[in-house]
Amino acid sequence: MLEPKLLEALAQLLTPAGPGTIRSIGDDAAVSDSRGPTATSMDQTVEGIHADMSVFTHADFGWRAVATAASDMAAMGALPADVFVALALPDGTSQEDAESVVAGADAAATACGARIIGGDIVSSPTLSAAVTIVGVDPLQPGFVGRGGAKLGDLIGVTGALGGSAAGLIALRAGDSTSAVAQRHLRPTARIAEGRALAATGVTSMIDISDGIATDAGHIGAASGVCLEIRLQDLPVEDGVEAIALQSGVEPAVFAATGGEDFELLFTADPECRAAVELAVGAVGVSWIGEVTASEPGTNLTRAGLAGWQHGG
Amino acid sequence: MLEPKLLEALAQLLTPAGPGTIRSIGDDAAVSDSRGPTATSMDQTVEGIHADMSVFTHADFGWRAVATAASDMAAMGALPADVFVALALPDGTSQEDAESVVAGADAAATACGARIIGGDIVSSPTLSAAVTIVGVDPLQPGFVGRGGAKLGDLIGVTGALGGSAAGLIALRAGDSTSAVAQRHLRPTARIAEGRALAATGVTSMIDISDGIATDAGHIGAASGVCLEIRLQDLPVEDGVEAIALQSGVEPAVFAATGGEDFELLFTADPECRAAVELAVGAVGVSWIGEVTASEPGTNLTRAGLAGWQHGG
Repeated sequence: MLEPKLLEALAQLLTPAGPGTIRSIGDDAAVSDSRGPTATSMDQTVEGIHADMSVFTHADFGWRAVATAASDMAAMGALPADVFVALALPDGTSQEDAESVVAGADAAATACGARIIGGDIVSSPTLSAAVTIVGVDPLQPGFVGRGGAKLGDLIGVTGALGGSAAGLIALRAGDSTSAVAQRHLRPTARIAEGRALAATGVTSMIDISDGIATDAGHIGAASGVCLEIRLQDLPVEDGVEAIALQSGVEPAVFAATGGEDFELLFTADPECRAAVELAVGAVGVSWIGEVTASEPGTNLTRAGLAGWQHGG
Repeated sequence: MLEPKLLEALAQLLTPAGPGTIRSIGDDAAVSDSRGPTATSMDQTVEGIHADMSVFTHADFGWRAVATAASDMAAMGALPADVFVALALPDGTSQEDAESVVAGADAAATACGARIIGGDIVSSPTLSAAVTIVGVDPLQPGFVGRGGAKLGDLIGVTGALGGSAAGLIALRAGDSTSAVAQRHLRPTARIAEGRALAATGVTSMIDISDGIATDAGHIGAASGVCLEIRLQDLPVEDGVEAIALQSGVEPAVFAATGGEDFELLFTADPECRAAVELAVGAVGVSWIGEVTASEPGTNLTRAGLAGWQHGG
């Protein structure tokens, strides 16, 4: 059993909720008034599966749990509002470590403009966090889904890829300070970019969690079109090339399959190209392919030669 | 890694969402329009901690995970609407067992008028389910909290107590068919009773998950009053007395401390007594004490003799 005093101590670490929250921690449920449709997503982080605790601190673990859930909001073009964190702590977890998890989670929530207003804490043999995040759309043009990609659309991706997978390799080799290491430990949800992309009228969007090949396949399947992606045009993050080559993997393939970069993959009408480039700002966009008429799914090509097929 | 085909198979088991849901399974987030304030709660069920898998089936596990989360809605007087289920499945979980968890969860959601419209599934060493449930209040008099108990209020409790703890003992002795065994495996959230009690104007309410002494203490602390409860007036569930005595525990003490009965504990103005009795219908109400002026917390008395004190 967990001590009620631990719960109190953890609750006091949270950034206070804002005016949209009617009641937060301390009752059977939190009460919110979102005034408009909400987008709600749930995401889990489990020690050993999503977070190697030999390289993650407890604060990193809390950050990652919230940031990856928030990334689903970015992919919807939603503005995160309410966050609920359900923690499972192994017996013997120190109060300091429990507080670090909560502080990391709170920092990730406030970093994307949201607040933790509820949750749950239980004992479990396995450290895990399940995060529910609720987003709103103040301008109410509707949230961006996976199903709207159209023939002739351009395919874009924000930022650069491969950093998270390279970061894990770097961390395990003892490097915790490089940019790729930090990218693995402290992923950033592209909230502002997702909002701005939604405003330009992108036709579909997803966040890259499983690798671009798999995630593009989800858009292809939901939209009934083929996303043809040019491997040589993928943006490879600085510092990834050397680590990929050391691992015996071609950097572009490493970037395509590494996953967990939490960049945004989207499709847009060619007429929106300039608006999209302006919208994403400093994070940048790479145009990596087009939507073609083939079977639903993804086709990755390499310098004009057909690569491999991925179904949706 | 979990197979995408398993996710599809599980998604197909779910009861379709209703008109309040704009988008459900299949995108980065579900989209709902609740029209009005929402109450949101999160609750976790972990194998070995909340569910002894030597006596629970996977369907019981799924049911329990959703029913206990729904009980928080009952305690708010909320009408459950949207449910999100995050499952962590150990490697080697069969598709049949995974489907049973989802079918049990879906049955518990539909039993309280709600729908599962999103969630997450990951691998983990430990079987667990984190459930987020969102409730609405169509009449909008506001949700019932823990903080409104007033001096002179009567203390009431729905149904009968001790059944869940007795049921676990019965199950471990090989009895899975008795009413108390089923009470442990398949708890029922008192949704209709919670709604009806809210409509009578009860001043505070909580569901009994940790035992009445602890849960009454939460109301006392939040309201700044003392809940004085007469042990001899606690409603003891049929079948509990024999099991309590076999365990060497006085039945009323067993009922007060067993926990997990998920009955509703509430305070009400004495003038509302008849309205409350009518509202709870066949489930029934027991009047077990009064709100007194002492220190915030609970005071349990036994046949007029002071019992023991519980702080909030």
